[in-house]
Amino acid sequence: MALWIRFERGGQTGFGMLANETIQIHIGDMFDAPVASGETIALAEVSILTPCIPSKFIGLWNNFHAAAEKQGNAIPPEPLYFIKGANSYLAHGKAIRKPDSYDGKIIYEGELGVVIGRQARNVSIETADAFIFGYTCVNDVTALDIITRDPTFAQWPRAKSFDTFGAFGPVIATGLDASPLVIRTLLNGRERQNYPVSDMIFSPRSLVAAISRELTLKPGDIISCGTSLGVGVLRAGMSVEVSIDGIGVLQNSVA
Amino acid sequence: MALWIRFERGGQTGFGMLANETIQIHIGDMFDAPVASGETIALAEVSILTPCIPSKFIGLWNNFHAAAEKQGNAIPPEPLYFIKGANSYLAHGKAIRKPDSYDGKIIYEGELGVVIGRQARNVSIETADAFIFGYTCVNDVTALDIITRDPTFAQWPRAKSFDTFGAFGPVIATGLDASPLVIRTLLNGRERQNYPVSDMIFSPRSLVAAISRELTLKPGDIISCGTSLGVGVLRAGMSVEVSIDGIGVLQNSVA
Repeated sequence: MALWIRFERGGQTGFGMLANETIQIHIGDMFDAPVASGETIALAEVSILTPCIPSKFIGLWNNFHAAAEKQGNAIPPEPLYFIKGANSYLAHGKAIRKPDSYDGKIIYEGELGVVIGRQARNVSIETADAFIFGYTCVNDVTALDIITRDPTFAQWPRAKSFDTFGAFGPVIATGLDASPLVIRTLLNGRERQNYPVSDMIFSPRSLVAAISRELTLKPGDIISCGTSLGVGVLRAGMSVEVSIDGIGVLQNSVA
Repeated sequence: MALWIRFERGGQTGFGMLANETIQIHIGDMFDAPVASGETIALAEVSILTPCIPSKFIGLWNNFHAAAEKQGNAIPPEPLYFIKGANSYLAHGKAIRKPDSYDGKIIYEGELGVVIGRQARNVSIETADAFIFGYTCVNDVTALDIITRDPTFAQWPRAKSFDTFGAFGPVIATGLDASPLVIRTLLNGRERQNYPVSDMIFSPRSLVAAISRELTLKPGDIISCGTSLGVGVLRAGMSVEVSIDGIGVLQNSVA
């Protein structure tokens, strides 16, 4: 079990393993046998970046039994997903910004993110775990009123891809069994979401298998597993945290 | 006016300006003052790559008056767009593959692709041209039957993002006025699409301006301007060409 983090210091980016508020700096490729450089640096001395830069960031809709039941959605026969644009990626500690062009509701969605470690194409559910590098916390921020604003064309990627709407981190936790995890979202310190991975309609490994039959997954790609009950509106000045024991706490403010 | 191309030769990638079937190799950043190395290489000696690697590939829906009228779609008050996954990118000359998991219709959509040259955020229509590097040919291949297969969730990104469904190239043409261009698509050599840029509902510069208010655009990003009349089904063994005078011909076969 390890916690991987990326950072910036003095204009240079780096990555390493985080333990006791200290980063053991590594060199090479995070997903392919990285090597410890021997250097360490205190977490407090760096600026935290997103823990990877996904070539694509896939988000799930309607992937929890409790939410499907409450919202009256049928259990989907296959995973239903969208893509978040790379411009939306946001690191821990950075501010979520309301787009100038949109006055509607902006909501948080605390989620478990699956980070791919090896190129995955046509993998089976049984072997899918070998393609998962680890897990991260995701806040799949959404401009809710845009999705169905045009009756002829559902605008999922747009509603999900405004700048700063794809928060994830602060770390990728490896060597972790996802099945007992619980996702909690706190708004200004008050718990708003608390739901278990065990309620997923499609588990992380079944998502990797299904999506890999259609879209080749690359190291660093993220599949965010969808959210459950308790989503709510973000307003300027708020602080939102997505907390998963065993991974960490992703905190962002709203500008 | 120049034609920029990326290529692979002996396991190394490079880029340069194409003229008379010869590439004048350049070094540095294609979008930021690249420098001629002095070397040239014959086009016939290289393998052509996609002319850039977009951090995001945005596609338009319902952006031509003729198609909107024929299909009975209202003129949209704002651009309606989706995102194609990076795994879908396909170079000139490479094969479009039917996904194993899908037996429905696969269609070609010949389109004009706008390639961004400078980071664009909140740009005006009047200044948008300065953020456009050039134009390329796009085949926005689509798994048509998936889009509305689930009545609760329109699956645009999935239908558009299967591996090999995002063909573009072979070059990026710079210093070109897009407004008089005509997009033609040929299937096994027979013309199936022939429509002018002048029929667009949202022009390239208005697309750049509108989208840049929501999603920061990066050098190499592509906005594909949507298609018009004449789309049709691709079957194994077919050859499809998207041809735009002044840019070139994007050819792909169907495996």
